Amino acid sequence: MPLQPDDLTPVAHALFPGSQRVYAQGSRPDLCVPMRRVLLSPTRRDDGSLEDNAPVDVYDTSGPWGDPRFHGDVTRGLPLVRAAWIAGRKAEGAPTTQMQCARRGIITPEMEFVAIREKLSPKFVRAEVERGRAIIPSNIKHPEAEPMAIGRHFLVKINTNIGNSAVASNIEEEVEKMRWSIKWGGDTLMDLSTGRNIHQTREWILRNCPVPVGTVPIYQALEKTNGRANALTWEIYRDTLIEQAEQGVDYFTIHAGLLRAFLPFTAKRLTGIVSRGGAILAQWCLANARENFLYTHWDEICEILAAYDIAVSIGDGLRPGSIADANDEAQFAELKIQGELTSRAWEHGVQVMNEGPGHVPMHKIKENMEHQLEWCHEAPFYTLGPVTTDIAPAYDHITSAIGAAIIGWNGTAMLCYVTPKEHLGLPNRDDVRAGVITYKIAAHAADLAKGHPYAQTRDNALSKARFEFRWEDQFNLSLDPEMARVYHDATLPHDSAKSAHYCSMCGPNFCPMRITGDIRRCVAQDLAKQSGV
Amino acid sequence: MPLQPDDLTPVAHALFPGSQRVYAQGSRPDLCVPMRRVLLSPTRRDDGSLEDNAPVDVYDTSGPWGDPRFHGDVTRGLPLVRAAWIAGRKAEGAPTTQMQCARRGIITPEMEFVAIREKLSPKFVRAEVERGRAIIPSNIKHPEAEPMAIGRHFLVKINTNIGNSAVASNIEEEVEKMRWSIKWGGDTLMDLSTGRNIHQTREWILRNCPVPVGTVPIYQALEKTNGRANALTWEIYRDTLIEQAEQGVDYFTIHAGLLRAFLPFTAKRLTGIVSRGGAILAQWCLANARENFLYTHWDEICEILAAYDIAVSIGDGLRPGSIADANDEAQFAELKIQGELTSRAWEHGVQVMNEGPGHVPMHKIKENMEHQLEWCHEAPFYTLGPVTTDIAPAYDHITSAIGAAIIGWNGTAMLCYVTPKEHLGLPNRDDVRAGVITYKIAAHAADLAKGHPYAQTRDNALSKARFEFRWEDQFNLSLDPEMARVYHDATLPHDSAKSAHYCSMCGPNFCPMRITGDIRRCVAQDLAKQSGV
Repeated sequence: MPLQPDDLTPVAHALFPGSQRVYAQGSRPDLCVPMRRVLLSPTRRDDGSLEDNAPVDVYDTSGPWGDPRFHGDVTRGLPLVRAAWIAGRKAEGAPTTQMQCARRGIITPEMEFVAIREKLSPKFVRAEVERGRAIIPSNIKHPEAEPMAIGRHFLVKINTNIGNSAVASNIEEEVEKMRWSIKWGGDTLMDLSTGRNIHQTREWILRNCPVPVGTVPIYQALEKTNGRANALTWEIYRDTLIEQAEQGVDYFTIHAGLLRAFLPFTAKRLTGIVSRGGAILAQWCLANARENFLYTHWDEICEILAAYDIAVSIGDGLRPGSIADANDEAQFAELKIQGELTSRAWEHGVQVMNEGPGHVPMHKIKENMEHQLEWCHEAPFYTLGPVTTDIAPAYDHITSAIGAAIIGWNGTAMLCYVTPKEHLGLPNRDDVRAGVITYKIAAHAADLAKGHPYAQTRDNALSKARFEFRWEDQFNLSLDPEMARVYHDATLPHDSAKSAHYCSMCGPNFCPMRITGDIRRCVAQDLAKQSGV
Repeated sequence: MPLQPDDLTPVAHALFPGSQRVYAQGSRPDLCVPMRRVLLSPTRRDDGSLEDNAPVDVYDTSGPWGDPRFHGDVTRGLPLVRAAWIAGRKAEGAPTTQMQCARRGIITPEMEFVAIREKLSPKFVRAEVERGRAIIPSNIKHPEAEPMAIGRHFLVKINTNIGNSAVASNIEEEVEKMRWSIKWGGDTLMDLSTGRNIHQTREWILRNCPVPVGTVPIYQALEKTNGRANALTWEIYRDTLIEQAEQGVDYFTIHAGLLRAFLPFTAKRLTGIVSRGGAILAQWCLANARENFLYTHWDEICEILAAYDIAVSIGDGLRPGSIADANDEAQFAELKIQGELTSRAWEHGVQVMNEGPGHVPMHKIKENMEHQLEWCHEAPFYTLGPVTTDIAPAYDHITSAIGAAIIGWNGTAMLCYVTPKEHLGLPNRDDVRAGVITYKIAAHAADLAKGHPYAQTRDNALSKARFEFRWEDQFNLSLDPEMARVYHDATLPHDSAKSAHYCSMCGPNFCPMRITGDIRRCVAQDLAKQSGV
């Protein structure tokens, strides 16, 4: 049964201070869209009277974990919020994929959910899904997921990665990382496990994850050949797809655009192939002297995807791994094939996005977006960064956030996060948090630059709180309220400082904001004099 | 006496691992430009033979503190590297300021120093200084400073701030912060102290600082009126200018472009005036019902500046303090006056740059740069960020690095760093380090995007090291070698991992870089077969 709030009365949010969990009610009783309402204190006017500040509702990816009335635990999994919708479509003989439904003119509950979440009309959502400009990844076997859209006319989304490897990590850690990343705002989650217990890790994540889950199935297929790329077969891969489809994975990264003919282009690169999936398939092509089997079996792949409404994220196995290799022949040759595969997937009613780079200096970013829009027919673009300089390992969340913000502004629909450990090691909790927040910044900066009608609401509310020295409101409106509070309190720990009309940076005598208040009053008096009042 | 290396034999760098301090010799014996040479290990080819990798020389802002043969301490101060040059000009009857010298066709040792540092011709440097497109801040009373240029045809520079306030900090801490910030790459340093002991703090910093030092003299002037802005006078301010000029401050931020007529424009803003200096002067104008005395005394100010070759950084007292206020009437009205003041300062031979915002969403950044170039006649632009979204206090080094990288790419010559504590509290050592490294990233990303001929050398060297699993070289080439090593070692601490052909992210079986090596060999074999070899 889906989580059914007894009523829509707001209750304290389970994960954030000064916030409530609220639900926006849709057209049916089981369609309740969760949001986080940040409550604000009133402004104290000069005359001592109070002026209310409207609460700010923010997009909430935490699912039932953010609802204090939800007392689930990881062994039981989440309520099946979409189960009735999926069953209803089946009973009515409606098609399986969101794209197929959109083509038939059906506005699914998933589309309505997304529309409420993003303050758009359900009709617009349906039209974007039909056109292939937006996707709602929603495997019918993952009814725990709350619908979300990826498309350039929607809010820019961020993906987070987790996964154990042969070297480190364990299952409990991965599930906890998932909850951690959605707390901070991860919109989707890729499980990139490559070590032991891949199946079981994924099962726990899926049953507890309220956001779409993606995987790169070739990783598990390779486990089945004990790491020997040459021994991969279409049959092993197909069985892996079906195994993961049955578990409920919502989107698959599939490196079908990497063709054998493109491999010589990579030999002259500074950093060759840096995509794990790309390297595995390249090795297979060379060892077997045959074309990439993902390309040759594309239609069969699409049939499987369509049967579950799994979206495909067409991988960029030849993405550049350094500034030197950006926008080269290998990269763009593959992107053109990604476009061909997009059209063919659409024929099957499969929802599609395209993966993009990688490492690209700022002045070469726009060209990536322009080519992708043209060659891939406006399917959503999903990029990894891009990193804008190679000289700052340990800070690649930042080198890449610069590129991510720019490419998001240019039209990229989803940004794959990068943590400070990128290129160096496996991220821990602090790294995941830093990666998610940094990418929320990039995505939001892009939303602002695109002129999204609601994006600036939160900025304005926070800036007003800052200007009025409502410190608690500033903290609570920020992407990371805990860190903002800790940083403030490092210099001024006492409660009295939370209502002081200055901060530690300037001290009381120099506070420009206090002075501005004085100026305002002077200007008002001057204007009053001039108008003879 | 300037620091005279006994010879130019490279020695181990005092501050960075795997590096040497080297000097490039100029046209006179006392003109030695310091650089940090990063030594690289050889590449091991498949056949076991070794291929040398050329060392990478990087711009070094650490001054004598980076030379292990320098055994100074903070009580004695630095060698007077420029003393003989300044004395020589005086003896020869040459003019005082770099701009005046440039106009007479003189290539000063400072210009030659900058040319060697940036791999440009001395003639080009002279021409840019004459044109006002570049400045070399160099107070004749600060002979400890190593010359550096700020201009959009030079490498993008970063400024760091330190300063005690009434609330926290002390002198020893500030001097140590200075050494800390130049270690990581701060190109200039602003002392923004507002509390007690301003004069003494500044003295210690100047005598120990090998980079140009800037101040905002109005802060100290206000101390002299016990914090009463209304009581400020031209005389108090002028005496403060001279006091600081005599100490050796290399550039002054002066908010002379804020006119009384512009103040009503700020009353309708979301966040009014957020510049400390701007707020102080606005209050003065209103209280005294007179025009900004910095504007009315501009020519006298310029005469003082010219006598010492102090550069002026024309402040932007009306910069926006929130996304909502970006690019508004108040901001651009002041920018036009900054242009007028630029021309007038040039008439005095004073070197000029202009300060810019602040808080600006990405799509409004370019307009700032275009207006500044046009209205301010291509004088160097020096911006504070800009912050591209207001919703992430505790991460404003990142929200602003996005804007800084973009505006640097567009032509801004110097970026004022922002630390994670911005808007919240006073930065500690870790915050300063994070701020400097983040801004080095923004500046370098901008250099790459501008196509600077030498910028990519370091990226390529690091990427090649990464591709070849030369972990130590990767660490040593990075902006923060210590942090890169710590992050790597968090997952794989053993020495053997430093030569392993994989890392913790993918583990040994999945390493794409190793696989690419295999592909290269296959492609080479294929090509060999095709050519019948």
